[in-house]
Amino acid sequence: MYALADRLWSFPRSLTGDGVRATIEALSRDVGGLDVHEVPSGTQVGDWEVPLEWNLYRAKLVAPDGTIVCDSAQNNLHVIGYCMPFHGQVPLEELEAHLYSLPELPSAIPYVTSYYERRWGFCISHNQRMTLMPGDYRVEIDTSLKAGSLTYADLVLPGQLREEILVSTYICHPSMANNELSGPVVTTELIKYLKSKMNRRYTYRFVFAPETIGAITYLHQNLHHLQKHVKAGFIVTCVGDDRARSLLPTREGTHDLDQVARHVLRFLDSSFTEYPWTSRGSDERQYSAPTVGIPMVSMMRSKYWEYPEYHTSLDNLESVVSPEGLAGGFEAIRQAIQILEENVVPKTTVIGEPMLGKRGLYATLGAGRFSTSPQTLLDVWSFCDGTCSVLAIAEKLNLPFDEVLTIIEMLSGHGLLEMSIAELR
Amino acid sequence: MYALADRLWSFPRSLTGDGVRATIEALSRDVGGLDVHEVPSGTQVGDWEVPLEWNLYRAKLVAPDGTIVCDSAQNNLHVIGYCMPFHGQVPLEELEAHLYSLPELPSAIPYVTSYYERRWGFCISHNQRMTLMPGDYRVEIDTSLKAGSLTYADLVLPGQLREEILVSTYICHPSMANNELSGPVVTTELIKYLKSKMNRRYTYRFVFAPETIGAITYLHQNLHHLQKHVKAGFIVTCVGDDRARSLLPTREGTHDLDQVARHVLRFLDSSFTEYPWTSRGSDERQYSAPTVGIPMVSMMRSKYWEYPEYHTSLDNLESVVSPEGLAGGFEAIRQAIQILEENVVPKTTVIGEPMLGKRGLYATLGAGRFSTSPQTLLDVWSFCDGTCSVLAIAEKLNLPFDEVLTIIEMLSGHGLLEMSIAELR
Amino acid sequence: MYALADRLWSFPRSLTGDGVRATIEALSRDVGGLDVHEVPSGTQVGDWEVPLEWNLYRAKLVAPDGTIVCDSAQNNLHVIGYCMPFHGQVPLEELEAHLYSLPELPSAIPYVTSYYERRWGFCISHNQRMTLMPGDYRVEIDTSLKAGSLTYADLVLPGQLREEILVSTYICHPSMANNELSGPVVTTELIKYLKSKMNRRYTYRFVFAPETIGAITYLHQNLHHLQKHVKAGFIVTCVGDDRARSLLPTREGTHDLDQVARHVLRFLDSSFTEYPWTSRGSDERQYSAPTVGIPMVSMMRSKYWEYPEYHTSLDNLESVVSPEGLAGGFEAIRQAIQILEENVVPKTTVIGEPMLGKRGLYATLGAGRFSTSPQTLLDVWSFCDGTCSVLAIAEKLNLPFDEVLTIIEMLSGHGLLEMSIAELR
Repeated sequence: MYALADRLWSFPRSLTGDGVRATIEALSRDVGGLDVHEVPSGTQVGDWEVPLEWNLYRAKLVAPDGTIVCDSAQNNLHVIGYCMPFHGQVPLEELEAHLYSLPELPSAIPYVTSYYERRWGFCISHNQRMTLMPGDYRVEIDTSLKAGSLTYADLVLPGQLREEILVSTYICHPSMANNELSGPVVTTELIKYLKSKMNRRYTYRFVFAPETIGAITYLHQNLHHLQKHVKAGFIVTCVGDDRARSLLPTREGTHDLDQVARHVLRFLDSSFTEYPWTSRGSDERQYSAPTVGIPMVSMMRSKYWEYPEYHTSLDNLESVVSPEGLAGGFEAIRQAIQILEENVVPKTTVIGEPMLGKRGLYATLGAGRFSTSPQTLLDVWSFCDGTCSVLAIAEKLNLPFDEVLTIIEMLSGHGLLEMSIAELR
Repeated sequence: MYALADRLWSFPRSLTGDGVRATIEALSRDVGGLDVHEVPSGTQVGDWEVPLEWNLYRAKLVAPDGTIVCDSAQNNLHVIGYCMPFHGQVPLEELEAHLYSLPELPSAIPYVTSYYERRWGFCISHNQRMTLMPGDYRVEIDTSLKAGSLTYADLVLPGQLREEILVSTYICHPSMANNELSGPVVTTELIKYLKSKMNRRYTYRFVFAPETIGAITYLHQNLHHLQKHVKAGFIVTCVGDDRARSLLPTREGTHDLDQVARHVLRFLDSSFTEYPWTSRGSDERQYSAPTVGIPMVSMMRSKYWEYPEYHTSLDNLESVVSPEGLAGGFEAIRQAIQILEENVVPKTTVIGEPMLGKRGLYATLGAGRFSTSPQTLLDVWSFCDGTCSVLAIAEKLNLPFDEVLTIIEMLSGHGLLEMSIAELR
Repeated sequence: MYALADRLWSFPRSLTGDGVRATIEALSRDVGGLDVHEVPSGTQVGDWEVPLEWNLYRAKLVAPDGTIVCDSAQNNLHVIGYCMPFHGQVPLEELEAHLYSLPELPSAIPYVTSYYERRWGFCISHNQRMTLMPGDYRVEIDTSLKAGSLTYADLVLPGQLREEILVSTYICHPSMANNELSGPVVTTELIKYLKSKMNRRYTYRFVFAPETIGAITYLHQNLHHLQKHVKAGFIVTCVGDDRARSLLPTREGTHDLDQVARHVLRFLDSSFTEYPWTSRGSDERQYSAPTVGIPMVSMMRSKYWEYPEYHTSLDNLESVVSPEGLAGGFEAIRQAIQILEENVVPKTTVIGEPMLGKRGLYATLGAGRFSTSPQTLLDVWSFCDGTCSVLAIAEKLNLPFDEVLTIIEMLSGHGLLEMSIAELR
């Protein structure tokens, strides 16, 4: 995942353009094929409109003495998103209005966009800005903004059920690591994991699209299908650093998926932070919108808005995102998917407690990954009346899902239980 | 309101009699007409019976030296409620059994009644009692207790719905301010407020009746209609001082009206006191009785029983009730009624989030009474799925009802929402 | 109860055998007749099998110098449960593997069983073990283990309803007091109490059986009947000392019987301990098993596992169980049964509050066991709308069931209420 993120680092991503296309192409190659879609500029998508396509070729700012102040080839954050093309000499006094920097984070290049207002500008560190000498600066911005299309990709992995789990991530930020590249690279790892899984229970739908306008476009083009088949889903965002665990629950916080996510996160890191719905900020804003109503959760590491490097050049692969961070971000969602796939409702057929001794079940207990006591085994069994799922039992007994599932499978192997699929609601 | 209370101050109110009639007449003039009802003494009203009519003409107690100890013309609290007529000379030793005072509140004349036992007596301050010299006192009590009638008044303001909101207050205490006059004068102000309101949603039924026996009489005479049409109501009592906010909720505390009352009081004074059902003490005892079951709340200032001047001459218009206190008491109930009238259930028709920018909604946000952020606007919008009322959204987001309603109306004005009336349950 | 426990003290009880039969016979004589059942060894009872019958005749351990180390005639805990017969000379080194003692409780003889593995052994105090001299010890164990039967007894006291309350206790531990004899002797007292009660509402089913295998056997022999008729029940165990009150609730803890048990225990001892379902350990494990699902509670004194003398010779009639402890253990269950028998749902027929004065109800209030205020009487009355049982009202008002029932009966006596039986769910 880390290597793939590194490969995608310098692509000039934005809402539209070749940077997005190159990113999708690289991801597609990595997972063995995605369906790519182009939606023409100007297409009405409900209350919105697909914007003009923007491409960044090169942007440079040259000081009066000829030294290069900044160059998009060095870091594509130097040019604001949807920057207009411009060539000319500009005196420092005038240039100031086109420069963006962060006095409170002086070593960081900020990330700035201007999607709906036409302007040009450069983002530089405040430290560098303080060194600029008076005089005329040469501005060379080669960008284009014209009718084109918005690009997104999706992939469907069919399962035994037609019910779908939606996994959506965004691909519209330039060179940033936790709040961009962690999302698509963890999503590709999830695709590989699910492809390798035999007998998937649910059908999985993966979406790679620019945030907001991409999700709205996707909703409009697939609304009927999504409303009919998608039960719930994940937004994959901010899953790359190793400093925190965070959850953005569904609107009501009472969906089975919330319980799944809380269960996984509690056992991974009991001090994880659950944020309120009002701190949402990614594409659950679209997928969970009132007329659509798909329950979505975000199982994150450090949440957008909540870490100092957010939306700056400091959110990079060196100091923020790490292989361990990505692995942990992947693992949380993988475990949640595992619960969705494996959660069953056990029902015993025995009258009174089963006799453990004659089946050698006492011996089995110590042998596996968990050192389960006979009392715990019988605690689990006492809930096997066909009303409680494995997850529900795990929550009641404060045991990890895996341990309860292991017990249930052991009891089932001895013919003491029947199992049916746990519905997701 | 304060002036009207002052005008009603000296009327000798009790369960029955001309003091009640004069009070009702003055109120009726003030609001432009009430329906007055007379119910003959002896009428069976369920488990009770309408009592004999009592009238106080004048009562005086004269000391051996001819000085007047007390005179009902000075303060009608001096004579106990339902006092029997009596004229005679009584030595101090014998008089003591007919005197009522409060050693723990020595400057106060207590309020004493003897509705169901025949006796005569005077209420005086303990300070004054301590000065009484031995000797024969002249007692001149001119009262009458005989068959007559109980008087109450009501008024119905029709609305678009036949569903009714009951607003009931009592008119049976003599010269006391918070625990008597604040109730009827705030109720008249509510009548004026609702008369001036175009397109009332609910029908409002106002009742002015003596406490307990009046409410029971009213119930008996209107039971079928009340059970069929009244959805909920307010007891207007103790709404005149400016020292506290108090709520007596419905029996279960889970009616929509409880939520309305708590919402209003929380934003008016977050430290308001919610009392338990077991501390109820006014006509919710009748209207919410098991066979009737109308959910009633009392949104009060200092609650009966809970302030030191309660049921004494110190509960007056000078030291307890103030124009500000009355205005604040009125305002709480007015806001609750406003919520009943204006609460709607919004439902969006947009797929995904609406685009605020193109509608100039960002600009609008700062312009009104509230400085609403775009995130707050979208928080509100995220609940517009046809299952949450404006009040429910306000409670979820901890925002005042008014602010959420303003947002909803703004979104509705842009065609982004449909609205239906919120049912009261 | 204490005398009966003393009489049963030395009977050599185990899962099967003449000690159980003698115990049942003594209990049967005490209550005037139980139905005794014998189930042959080898009978399949679901997942289990009725074991061989074991009888202890005498077991002695004699030291090299001829002194008797231990003798089952002195304390039948000295021989392990289901001990194999054995006669022979055994050197101390070899004997050690057959001795059981508790270093951490050196004065106690431990209680040890070996139901499913064939061995012989003696239990002695650790103090005594430390004094054993090297040399050859004479072992004389006269026991028998062979096909026979398992013995249990039951008794049904019919009531007006065919719905049954199950009361089950176990009779399989040798000389121990709180964790054995308190159960059967309190149960016999409950039988006498219920026999003396006219017009029982529920039918009561009493079961005396060895723990686990006895309950499983009982379930198998009566499954259809139990599932159809039994609404809930009590495990009578650990009801003999006077040091604590404990509750083991039903699995979900939300059955009416849980509310009954908590109500009784709270008023008997507000600091009683409620244990979680996972600390269950008696025959609720069978009766409440998933396929059977009878809600069972245990209203205990010091709970099994939770007191230091548990499963040792120190759990005796001198230092642990007392007449006061047994009386208090009986009283809790008796009160719970009283609530089951007497709980009703009151419904008033009065419109508005009843008039207390004309009925002399004020006077009545102070006269009984409770000094109930008129406000409390009207608090109770305010819930008499046909939706709340006496117990529910008592819980809402935090009053003892008895006090509320007294009020309800008083109001009913004045024709102010109708009552219907409260269903148990």
